[in-house]
Amino acid sequence: MSDLTRFGISMESQLLKRFDQYISEQHYSNRSEAIRDLVREQLIHNDWKNEEKEIVGTITLVYDHHQRELSEKLTEYQHAVHEQVISTMHVHLNHHHCLEVLVVKGKTSQIQELAKMILSTKGVKHGKLVMTSSAEGL
Amino acid sequence: MSDLTRFGISMESQLLKRFDQYISEQHYSNRSEAIRDLVREQLIHNDWKNEEKEIVGTITLVYDHHQRELSEKLTEYQHAVHEQVISTMHVHLNHHHCLEVLVVKGKTSQIQELAKMILSTKGVKHGKLVMTSSAEGL
Amino acid sequence: MSDLTRFGISMESQLLKRFDQYISEQHYSNRSEAIRDLVREQLIHNDWKNEEKEIVGTITLVYDHHQRELSEKLTEYQHAVHEQVISTMHVHLNHHHCLEVLVVKGKTSQIQELAKMILSTKGVKHGKLVMTSSAEGL
Amino acid sequence: MSDLTRFGISMESQLLKRFDQYISEQHYSNRSEAIRDLVREQLIHNDWKNEEKEIVGTITLVYDHHQRELSEKLTEYQHAVHEQVISTMHVHLNHHHCLEVLVVKGKTSQIQELAKMILSTKGVKHGKLVMTSSAEGL
Repeated sequence: MSDLTRFGISMESQLLKRFDQYISEQHYSNRSEAIRDLVREQLIHNDWKNEEKEIVGTITLVYDHHQRELSEKLTEYQHAVHEQVISTMHVHLNHHHCLEVLVVKGKTSQIQELAKMILSTKGVKHGKLVMTSSAEGL
Repeated sequence: MSDLTRFGISMESQLLKRFDQYISEQHYSNRSEAIRDLVREQLIHNDWKNEEKEIVGTITLVYDHHQRELSEKLTEYQHAVHEQVISTMHVHLNHHHCLEVLVVKGKTSQIQELAKMILSTKGVKHGKLVMTSSAEGL
Repeated sequence: MSDLTRFGISMESQLLKRFDQYISEQHYSNRSEAIRDLVREQLIHNDWKNEEKEIVGTITLVYDHHQRELSEKLTEYQHAVHEQVISTMHVHLNHHHCLEVLVVKGKTSQIQELAKMILSTKGVKHGKLVMTSSAEGL
Repeated sequence: MSDLTRFGISMESQLLKRFDQYISEQHYSNRSEAIRDLVREQLIHNDWKNEEKEIVGTITLVYDHHQRELSEKLTEYQHAVHEQVISTMHVHLNHHHCLEVLVVKGKTSQIQELAKMILSTKGVKHGKLVMTSSAEGL
């Protein structure tokens, strides 16, 4: 279905031997698949540096839901930028803590700003922004 | 509600001035909150190195749902380790691509293995494992 | 000699206990020293995003000195930007490979460009740019 | 001189187009060279997780040479593990600060321990460990 191009590359035999071992450890089915993943990772990594680039991502956060007014604040932030938050999922980890994941979409700079707002809120114990891509052209 | 300890730290005045500017840019409400976040991040980062440690995390993946039998394969993997996958969320990004987030829980080594299996599958274009913590003691 | 400011912070007792354990594992002599390092690391990390910022750094590279004309090429690059390369050190690793470290100084964007030029050269097997700071105000 | 193997890989045409653009931005002379670098980087990255692996690396540190007894302490650490420190280079950055680079060699776990000792010392403002490889088989 996708339009594939085939091309040849050369690699030191010793290096290729070690790469084949890596491919097997990582459960890749073949070299092309493993190389495509390395290439996509590198391209997406480069995209993050462009503030105007449209990206998708996820924000994972762990917070203490007993923290006074925290849920309200988090909901409020998200509504203020509702066009950037596609959907959210919530998991009760234990008596005190919740894990929440937000799927987000927007310009690199907007999404980073949103992540800062959320992750710096009192009661949010830990979190991470994952930037990925809608995979157009990848 | 939490049991707080208060202690003093000393810092070069110039460094503190730059830190205060960072705190304001990151929208932290005070120094304690910003320092606690740096400390938690460092501790969680250290935990990843311990293969036997119980962690929670999220796996974000972007894939092409037209890829033959991919959805079946992904579902199958997840069922094989169902006790590690707490819940999942799915977003349709565009005609070809879906974003999925899995909330996962298990030993560091198990979760890393699961992430490898999923992210190396043909048709999965990009993805990332975020390891965090159930925040017990954080 | 430096002008120190002392201030108080509060931390959950459990978190502080884990932090004290980390401090001891990392061989820090006290909490202030460990916290200052976390703060400096975060500030320097933020500086990298500013292309106009003046930074210092090191470029580590491992290369095959039997590769035809590689040494000449590397020397040539360095001379072309001699005002950015403060000094270099060379170590013979084994029959084939050398490790070289360059201490570099310039704007973030210039130094990144220099690192790209060097690390993408045929025969250069691996390398890394470390960006640090002349520590003014840190 | 090296023993090269040639093999074919397939890639979506759109992805290849973006990769070719990346290759040109990074100044690579051809696709093979760029792919070999991605592969080596991934393999070396994986090696770090193996504590018993013999590696080479560099430790970059910036420190305040007015800090009482710091130079003596740093020299002392290095002598205590002299078989791990191949050579060092020193640069005077400004009135207060020096940059030092150590080329180091040993097991992953030893080198990480050495870096911890040095980077946690009072007066050491910032630093980084770069782990690379003697490139045998890369």
